[in-house]
Amino acid sequence: MTKQTIRVELTSTKKPKPDPNQLSFGRVFTDHMFVMDYAADKGWYDPRIIPYQPFSMDPAAMVYHYGQTVFEGLKAYVSEDGHVLLFRPDKNMERLNLSNDRLCIPQIDEEQVLEGLKQLVAIDKDWIPNAEGTSLYIRPFIIATEPFLGVAASHTYKLFIILSPVGSYYKEGIKPVKIAVESEFVRAVKGGTGNAKTAGNYASSLKAQQVAEEKGFSQVLWLDGIEKKYIEEVGSMNIFFKINGEIVTPMLNGSILEGITRNSVIALLKHWGLPVSERKITIDEVIQAHKDGILEEAFGTGTAAVISPVGELIWQDETLSINNGETGEIAKKLYDTITGIQKGAVADEFGWTTEVAALTESK
Amino acid sequence: MTKQTIRVELTSTKKPKPDPNQLSFGRVFTDHMFVMDYAADKGWYDPRIIPYQPFSMDPAAMVYHYGQTVFEGLKAYVSEDGHVLLFRPDKNMERLNLSNDRLCIPQIDEEQVLEGLKQLVAIDKDWIPNAEGTSLYIRPFIIATEPFLGVAASHTYKLFIILSPVGSYYKEGIKPVKIAVESEFVRAVKGGTGNAKTAGNYASSLKAQQVAEEKGFSQVLWLDGIEKKYIEEVGSMNIFFKINGEIVTPMLNGSILEGITRNSVIALLKHWGLPVSERKITIDEVIQAHKDGILEEAFGTGTAAVISPVGELIWQDETLSINNGETGEIAKKLYDTITGIQKGAVADEFGWTTEVAALTESK
Ligand SMILES: Cc1ncc(COP(=O)(O)O)c(C=O)c1O
Ligand SMILES: Cc1ncc(COP(=O)(O)O)c(C=O)c1O
Repeated sequence: MTKQTIRVELTSTKKPKPDPNQLSFGRVFTDHMFVMDYAADKGWYDPRIIPYQPFSMDPAAMVYHYGQTVFEGLKAYVSEDGHVLLFRPDKNMERLNLSNDRLCIPQIDEEQVLEGLKQLVAIDKDWIPNAEGTSLYIRPFIIATEPFLGVAASHTYKLFIILSPVGSYYKEGIKPVKIAVESEFVRAVKGGTGNAKTAGNYASSLKAQQVAEEKGFSQVLWLDGIEKKYIEEVGSMNIFFKINGEIVTPMLNGSILEGITRNSVIALLKHWGLPVSERKITIDEVIQAHKDGILEEAFGTGTAAVISPVGELIWQDETLSINNGETGEIAKKLYDTITGIQKGAVADEFGWTTEVAALTESK
Repeated sequence: MTKQTIRVELTSTKKPKPDPNQLSFGRVFTDHMFVMDYAADKGWYDPRIIPYQPFSMDPAAMVYHYGQTVFEGLKAYVSEDGHVLLFRPDKNMERLNLSNDRLCIPQIDEEQVLEGLKQLVAIDKDWIPNAEGTSLYIRPFIIATEPFLGVAASHTYKLFIILSPVGSYYKEGIKPVKIAVESEFVRAVKGGTGNAKTAGNYASSLKAQQVAEEKGFSQVLWLDGIEKKYIEEVGSMNIFFKINGEIVTPMLNGSILEGITRNSVIALLKHWGLPVSERKITIDEVIQAHKDGILEEAFGTGTAAVISPVGELIWQDETLSINNGETGEIAKKLYDTITGIQKGAVADEFGWTTEVAALTESK
């Protein structure tokens, strides 16, 4: 692929930035976005950074009908000394192409899109909040644009990258959440799209999520769609348990998303010499471990909250309190280490961070 | 709900109509569309018929990210004597609301939307082709429009109805197709969204469909996601088998779409006094029946092709030729009867058709 130059068109009217102490998640967007088009006869073309704006499509565009779309989620952080850092963005590009493969969307040039992402973040770097726990959420996504009502892969696509300054998931550092084990609805099944980051997986999770929220739980823990027995993952996080000293997470099986935080957590635990295993784990094993007093910790891992300790696990009518509803030692250490690396405060022994730009005085 | 008036804005530049003998499926759209909006504080509002046109949305609109969307598909036909008929449109409205429920989309007023649909078809009635096998395909759909990057139900939606004149699925009446039984990929699973008409189900089917087409098969036959043993349905059709005189179709189980053609076929078969049953049916049973020489017919049912005889069924390395690859007697009778009712040529004993308008001389 020949290198294409990214066309840049800056906005003439910068938007006001939100109060960094009042940030929520995913509601405010920056001044610019990255866009690129695909046509069967041209490949991906016209990479450009343009003012953030609505765009127009035919109502027959295939994404509206057949959901051919994939996305990613990562974050940019500002270090104490004003450097803008990305955390393992190459992994997100790699996963985007895995998702593309599953959804019959043409592969992207990972380097090209990553370059566009970096230029975009550099241009909108003044939007990156630097209050404790805040960051700039980055959302690359691809949609099928061909106006055609037939179930087939589209011949045209659009790739976007949009940016949203986001607040801390937890007002004061990390706080344990209540998770309900879902026994009626299913998110994904082997042979389906569970290991791809695609819209349909999230659409199918809405109903269970809504029921859980009404009952006061923050997310649901999904079981496998076949035997409703094996633990899979949480709404938008992978899950880990510490049972009798061993740290366990469900092995990748084709229906779980391979989280980049999950991958980093496993690497760190191994690096620390702690016993960690990726294997099948049943809900019964977790409940039994709780009864036996050896369920020491449980936590979710994902880009949004990084590490989310699970204080209570709800299974049918039972509530399992884990570690007295408090953040466990491992969860805390992982959170401090990963967020430390992300913000450049902890030595990055794995080469996980990439610098994008330095903040100018204008900030 | 108080009755809202449908605002009508007619186009000033009518598009040229396609050659009725060269029609494909779902590529050409008529002059107008029906649109309606939803906001949490207003309910569904501003029903309108406006010129068919692209529309603009924020790149953060939730449908692009979390696939919260549902759709329907039905057809309008012109009778010999120039009347425009719809086939069981109330069933599509009912199913749209079932899909809405599963996808956490607010319920529509079925009568209101049906009224909008009828007015739209009446306005664009000159677009309905009347060559043998042609019709006007009608696509109602709803998309989540709120610009928000969080997995939750949207607070705003748009409902559209668009129209496309479509050709005959088969150039010369009905023609048997080759269907491959899918053993790797899974379309849907109990607890998922299989019984809703939502984008993600089709996105997840693309890969298997692509593989099948490369091998020269027209669609795949899905097995259940749990045991990969029970027959579910074809890409966009339900499936029927005639085994030793009994006509069998998989029973509704939560992961199959309840087809309106399926429902009509069952009603007709019962009306004719033929033995028909909705029950579990394994792929093994079908293969055994073929070996025993009692697999007499197989056919798919769906709005697009109405009845699609299956001439060959491919299972692993075996090819099962059904009824010598020819259209079976029952399939033919169902096709003739249903298309006859749809075009007003066969007496409508069930009250399935609804008249929308009469064609004017202008046609
Ligand atoms: C379904 C699902 N599982 C797990 C994760 C965690 O992945 P990551 O650590 O890459 O953010 C996410 C999202 O981010 C997700 O959507
Ligand atoms: C998955 C699926 N199954 C079955 C059908 C048949 O339904 P109907 O007869 O209502 O067209 C369709 C589509 O139309 C479909 O998409």
